[in-house]
Amino acid sequence: MGMTMTQKILAKHAGLDQVEAGQLIEARLDMVLGNDITAPVAITEFRKAGLTEIFHRDKIAIVLDHSVPCKDIKSAQLCAQARDFAREYHITHFYDVGQMGVEHALLPEKGLVAPGEAIIGADSHTCTYGALGAFSTGVGSTDMAAGMATGLAWFKVPPALKVTLKGRLRPFVSGKDVMLHLIGLIGVDGALYKSLEFTGEGVSALSMDDRFTISNMAIEAGGKNGIFPVDGVTRAYLDGRVDRPWESFEADPDAVYEREVVIDLNELKSTVALPHLPSNTRTVDQVAGTPIQQVIIGSCTNGRLEDMRQAAEVLKGRKVAPGVRCIVFPATQQIMLDAMRLGYVETFIQAGCAVSTPTCGPCLGGHMGVLSDGERAISTTNRNFVGRMGPVSSEIILASPSVAAASAVTGVVTDPATL
Amino acid sequence: MGMTMTQKILAKHAGLDQVEAGQLIEARLDMVLGNDITAPVAITEFRKAGLTEIFHRDKIAIVLDHSVPCKDIKSAQLCAQARDFAREYHITHFYDVGQMGVEHALLPEKGLVAPGEAIIGADSHTCTYGALGAFSTGVGSTDMAAGMATGLAWFKVPPALKVTLKGRLRPFVSGKDVMLHLIGLIGVDGALYKSLEFTGEGVSALSMDDRFTISNMAIEAGGKNGIFPVDGVTRAYLDGRVDRPWESFEADPDAVYEREVVIDLNELKSTVALPHLPSNTRTVDQVAGTPIQQVIIGSCTNGRLEDMRQAAEVLKGRKVAPGVRCIVFPATQQIMLDAMRLGYVETFIQAGCAVSTPTCGPCLGGHMGVLSDGERAISTTNRNFVGRMGPVSSEIILASPSVAAASAVTGVVTDPATL
Repeated sequence: MGMTMTQKILAKHAGLDQVEAGQLIEARLDMVLGNDITAPVAITEFRKAGLTEIFHRDKIAIVLDHSVPCKDIKSAQLCAQARDFAREYHITHFYDVGQMGVEHALLPEKGLVAPGEAIIGADSHTCTYGALGAFSTGVGSTDMAAGMATGLAWFKVPPALKVTLKGRLRPFVSGKDVMLHLIGLIGVDGALYKSLEFTGEGVSALSMDDRFTISNMAIEAGGKNGIFPVDGVTRAYLDGRVDRPWESFEADPDAVYEREVVIDLNELKSTVALPHLPSNTRTVDQVAGTPIQQVIIGSCTNGRLEDMRQAAEVLKGRKVAPGVRCIVFPATQQIMLDAMRLGYVETFIQAGCAVSTPTCGPCLGGHMGVLSDGERAISTTNRNFVGRMGPVSSEIILASPSVAAASAVTGVVTDPATL
Repeated sequence: MGMTMTQKILAKHAGLDQVEAGQLIEARLDMVLGNDITAPVAITEFRKAGLTEIFHRDKIAIVLDHSVPCKDIKSAQLCAQARDFAREYHITHFYDVGQMGVEHALLPEKGLVAPGEAIIGADSHTCTYGALGAFSTGVGSTDMAAGMATGLAWFKVPPALKVTLKGRLRPFVSGKDVMLHLIGLIGVDGALYKSLEFTGEGVSALSMDDRFTISNMAIEAGGKNGIFPVDGVTRAYLDGRVDRPWESFEADPDAVYEREVVIDLNELKSTVALPHLPSNTRTVDQVAGTPIQQVIIGSCTNGRLEDMRQAAEVLKGRKVAPGVRCIVFPATQQIMLDAMRLGYVETFIQAGCAVSTPTCGPCLGGHMGVLSDGERAISTTNRNFVGRMGPVSSEIILASPSVAAASAVTGVVTDPATL
């Protein structure tokens, strides 16, 4: 029986010729990831279990990104715990304040992800690396602890949902719009414990950063992972980053999919998700004019260089509207540097945006952009659940960097094409 | 009887020809300042007192800087309270996230302070503006409320301590070292409710940014204010910023001083203040080698362009030591822009520093750099009291930007001259 991309990667990592949906397997891991919120829990479990060895010091990544630079004593203690563990076990890929970035932007950038690899991370958006043709998924901290010790993880092989992309995106429409559209179509449980496998001739017209955004939000449709085929765009991205051998996997022609969704990229409009679910989507023209008080541009979903470029193109020569705060978070130090060299950071500051060092802060209501009662943000992040960015009376509208930037300029939800 | 600079300004603002130390006066105010922590308290008092009018919409400044971008729901609510008040009363100088900076860097930069003016601020480091020959001092939020309503404040005219500066500073020695040396000499209550009046031929060799740093820390010696004469350096700074008429005041030749301290700038070495008091000073060579885990470069004390330059000169082509976090906070958006254009921000990021949007955050243990248990920071901020930047077991060493940057490179307290 034919296998999907995901199933082939899992079979390979389980040392099996064939796997099928629903089968329980134990897979060898190429990378185990944690951050300053989840790694300390994993470390505590690791020590509680009496474990004293890690499976591979080069195959564990600990990234301090959620509450850094530390927002309070508790977060500083968690960072210290992760730091001590990384030092004790000589973890190669430990990223502290100043060297770091948002984990899911950082790992690909640093070449820690290659096609065909199997990666778990104690963070739900670990599915991001599917953009590079890897199998990657979020796990709990206990699984992270076991993964650090054994280099293995149990999985139930997921069934798949095929997303066939056609055509190419129009100006101001991006990967974020593709994914919000898809989630609006299938719902937040539309891909529950399934692989989202993206395919079709439309893939080739999607930039690497668009693909990262799309894979990143697979979990927002309930997906176990969200994976793209490897093509010239992928290889160009990997060039100079990954020099170890890697293998790409294509779905078999007779692979089984539970469902196929076809998206014509030409037809897509800028799309937003209204409070309080990523599936509560509208095209931006349907809700244009809705007032917002804060704009967040950044995060593991949309904090990459292309996102910065899209936001800067809209903000260039314009000003953030009175009464609106616009906070921009390049997702890594390298993206910050590149955005600075390309003049984007100057554009942001001239426009009246606050430009922050990389942090996940505002996305999860952690710090650096928490809302007050009844305030509404438009944000390029991935979740707009009740109270995620502040009090339960606050609201989040999810959008692309272009839409977020256009809305910053006007103070109301705005289609960048109409600016 | 002769009057000091401070006494002359107070006399003028009280409509009196003569005042003397200890006299109670009511002075007309040119500016009343509050921030996101203190203004909400003042606003609550203002409303509770049934007040409905402010004395002058151009003479109140509200700067959101302490917990911004907002670190939690409470700080977001405080910012919202200040924002609503500013909107309701059409406060001209309201600075929100993205337009702002650390208040005591921002007000001079925006031309809101001129020589001879009288300014109160609900923040203890309001004494900063003495650098421009203004009388400025920190007050409680209730005084801020009364000041906003009436444009007046009661003062007990302070006696004065004369600080005569001679010579000029050697390389790597800065205004911060002058002030730490002075506080070490006279103690944290050495100028209690007194004016610190800086004078002597050494003044002319001090840059404007050095003077801001020195006046800023007058309160750390207990001073009511810390004031400099107006000279060509001051006028060059004011040029293009302040176009309203202003008057400078010189001390009378027979002005009475309780004490005179003479500082020979040529003799000064880089100076640090060890935990837990700003007066616990040592020259850097006496404590070189003390390990540190975090470096903070910024704040109302040392977040100006010259501070950025001094730090960048040390960090250029070097790296932050492993195990050390170095967090740099340009104090205003304009300083961030300038530091970026001059390549300092590139230097910081290349060195492995986190560069943050302006905020007071870490100085007061608010956010963006809180320490963990037993950690030690070297910081260009102004206070190293027990627990100010984290748990009571954490420690702060106060230093200049050059010393802080050199220590970031080595991981131990380091004299930049020896790097």
